[in-house]
Amino acid sequence: MSEPRTRIRRLPEKAAHDRASLDAVLDAARVAHLAFVQEGSPVNVPVACARDGDRLLLHGSTGSRLLRTLGSGVEVCAAVTLLDGMVLARSAFESSMHYRSAMVFGTCAVVPDDGKVAALRAMSEAWMPGRWDTLRPPTAKELAATAVLALPLVEWSVKISAGDPEDPPEDLDAPVWAGVLPIVAAYGDPVPAPDLRGDPEVPAYLRGWRP
Amino acid sequence: MSEPRTRIRRLPEKAAHDRASLDAVLDAARVAHLAFVQEGSPVNVPVACARDGDRLLLHGSTGSRLLRTLGSGVEVCAAVTLLDGMVLARSAFESSMHYRSAMVFGTCAVVPDDGKVAALRAMSEAWMPGRWDTLRPPTAKELAATAVLALPLVEWSVKISAGDPEDPPEDLDAPVWAGVLPIVAAYGDPVPAPDLRGDPEVPAYLRGWRP
Repeated sequence: MSEPRTRIRRLPEKAAHDRASLDAVLDAARVAHLAFVQEGSPVNVPVACARDGDRLLLHGSTGSRLLRTLGSGVEVCAAVTLLDGMVLARSAFESSMHYRSAMVFGTCAVVPDDGKVAALRAMSEAWMPGRWDTLRPPTAKELAATAVLALPLVEWSVKISAGDPEDPPEDLDAPVWAGVLPIVAAYGDPVPAPDLRGDPEVPAYLRGWRP
Repeated sequence: MSEPRTRIRRLPEKAAHDRASLDAVLDAARVAHLAFVQEGSPVNVPVACARDGDRLLLHGSTGSRLLRTLGSGVEVCAAVTLLDGMVLARSAFESSMHYRSAMVFGTCAVVPDDGKVAALRAMSEAWMPGRWDTLRPPTAKELAATAVLALPLVEWSVKISAGDPEDPPEDLDAPVWAGVLPIVAAYGDPVPAPDLRGDPEVPAYLRGWRP
């Protein structure tokens, strides 16, 4: 019997097995890379993603070949990785990176018409919390032009690398600085659209957003 | 005859076709997602990457099943995506993201022993410029434990999304702020290793690094 493909073989001490860890990684991500097999070859496409309960939501144009392929029942492997820092050890060999990564295997379901608005709202709220209710609702034409897919969070793995450099004892006296350089992502100042009319204020909800 | 798989069908106006654009995206990335086919199913793994001329370098443990698979001549699709901002349009439908993404199709070559040090140095300089020469050289044992792979930059595509929200005229009078929220990644303050000895200074070269 083969091993489950979600078992982490390399540095298994970095594997997290709890659902909360998976949710935290997915919730911190905006983009997943979706791999699938097309005519025997791998294809790997970035897609905006948002977790909604037990599913990872994706969307795109109904005219998109990618969305049609993903919605056709093809197997996918969605990968999300957040880079959190550089680990500067005393040697190149022990230097590494801090990251949080998740991999989800499965098949995307097409979200039916009567679930589209809720799913689009969930994505919008994940990316731009508080904004959905300030926007006009989607039109029937927009909904018809939008395909929404849901990848169930059933078969997955999570790997998290954190912590200090781990140099062997014989390297500790090297006259070189060692430590961690954290990577911090932040939103810069909002840039108003050139065609903005009526001088609306930058919304207060936006100030609390984190990328 | 089928179309080249690197042709961008969706929003083709966002495609970049010049090698400088590819290089810029790859050079700004630290991590690629490598998709390949294993027993008919897609697998998608994050791997630290660095461009070195006409190749994308990867490395890992010679004991890693992943590295052995990638080095075995299997077809890969490496994808790199940098998220640059959120585009807040007047409607959810027109809202989007700024990103730079690259996709490279091909097969990884195993970098031979006599090219390993140069390749490792190139990766180190891409991630931590100026540091390699301050570290002890890799030992024979470390080199033997490290597999280095090179994916040639031959078959690739690049897609870049930038620019202002593009709302239709009928939405422009909506009483809602619209614009772009740029995402900026930066290094935070260096965190010294707890086992740091001799109080070495934080190296000056590190101050100029950008993630």
